[in-house]
Amino acid sequence: MTETNRLLFELEGAQGQRFSPYVWRTKMVLAHLGIDYQSQGVGFTDIGQAAGGGFKTVPILFEGQVCVSDSWAIAETIIDQTDGALFGGPAGRSFARYLHDWSSLGMLGSILRLNAVTIWQDQAPKDQDYFRRSREKRFAKPLEELCPDPQGELKALSRALRPLDSALGGQPFFGGQTPIYADYILFGNAQFARCSGPHAILSQNPGLEAWFERCLNLHGGLGRSEPSYIERHAR
Amino acid sequence: MTETNRLLFELEGAQGQRFSPYVWRTKMVLAHLGIDYQSQGVGFTDIGQAAGGGFKTVPILFEGQVCVSDSWAIAETIIDQTDGALFGGPAGRSFARYLHDWSSLGMLGSILRLNAVTIWQDQAPKDQDYFRRSREKRFAKPLEELCPDPQGELKALSRALRPLDSALGGQPFFGGQTPIYADYILFGNAQFARCSGPHAILSQNPGLEAWFERCLNLHGGLGRSEPSYIERHAR
Repeated sequence: MTETNRLLFELEGAQGQRFSPYVWRTKMVLAHLGIDYQSQGVGFTDIGQAAGGGFKTVPILFEGQVCVSDSWAIAETIIDQTDGALFGGPAGRSFARYLHDWSSLGMLGSILRLNAVTIWQDQAPKDQDYFRRSREKRFAKPLEELCPDPQGELKALSRALRPLDSALGGQPFFGGQTPIYADYILFGNAQFARCSGPHAILSQNPGLEAWFERCLNLHGGLGRSEPSYIERHAR
Repeated sequence: MTETNRLLFELEGAQGQRFSPYVWRTKMVLAHLGIDYQSQGVGFTDIGQAAGGGFKTVPILFEGQVCVSDSWAIAETIIDQTDGALFGGPAGRSFARYLHDWSSLGMLGSILRLNAVTIWQDQAPKDQDYFRRSREKRFAKPLEELCPDPQGELKALSRALRPLDSALGGQPFFGGQTPIYADYILFGNAQFARCSGPHAILSQNPGLEAWFERCLNLHGGLGRSEPSYIERHAR
């Protein structure tokens, strides 16, 4: 199998925006480990047909006969194929798994509420219909009413992020001098916020804000190469 | 300096109960590293006079001319005097620092609200007065009204703990096969709950419940040697 057989399906908006937090985690792992891949953008409504069909979420990593979905499963598969160092040992793996679940139960919902309308605006029409229908069903209210108090939502999110700011403790990354997968999980979340709406979710946590800038610079500026929501709308 | 010069000041209740989450973290570190010490129990109102005076919180570790207060500072001092392995590398240190701050901002407040009245009942009269006055000032309400809905508080706490249950991911400890300081931080919190009130705070997270039993057995059953609130009241 040559490297060009490796195909990553990633979510994209109407103008090719890449904003999925889960996909960004995978992309950072692939870049960190120097693994080449072809990227294939899919809209929300294309996911079900991607990679032969049967998957409900992205990222999907397709390698010849092996297809892995779910960012955690992909991370385990790829990282454990190497020396496993990207997890940062058993402690770093625990921390990463904690952040994975903590993100799904809290931080990502918060960003989704803040940016529901701008995410919707950024989709192609067929994906807009799906996104609105599915999210309004999940939250039982119109997208426009998901976040009646953005400042309160930002304040609560900043408070939840404060221990992560402390956790850096002057280190460049959660992994110390170099990032570990725990860094990439939180990076994916922050990149999702950066690319899907105008809110500066890290502004109350200066340690995290500086950390995010470092992450955006990693791997030749991979993260920074994706325009932020603000950059796209300033054009 | 001989080992008997090392003195640990720990909070104790009227019947010598040791329930401070921060002290338990330190005791587990000392036991893990095989460091001997003399223990000196102090009530809430004795802390200010302990170890020559000037400290506001326990634990206080007094070693000849060196006196360290604050569980995090003590952990850093002791662990970094060894090979540092108890932190579990930079990733484990980040995870520990995260849990330290996350505990102070959330979990410990939740346990305090749940057990405020039973903690108060367990103190000597002079310490009862101090505990009631200081906590009622902090929360701006009577101790008896701190937790109007214990089931709701337990449910919220269980939800906040869920990602930590996932984080174990089948490992015996957050550190993998052996505990790291992150384990001892969470252990201290859970031991505080176990020793200060009747609530089974881990019952909705079976992975954490099993982990806590393992922690209670560590170091010759050090944690288990302290009677739980339920055991004391069943006598």
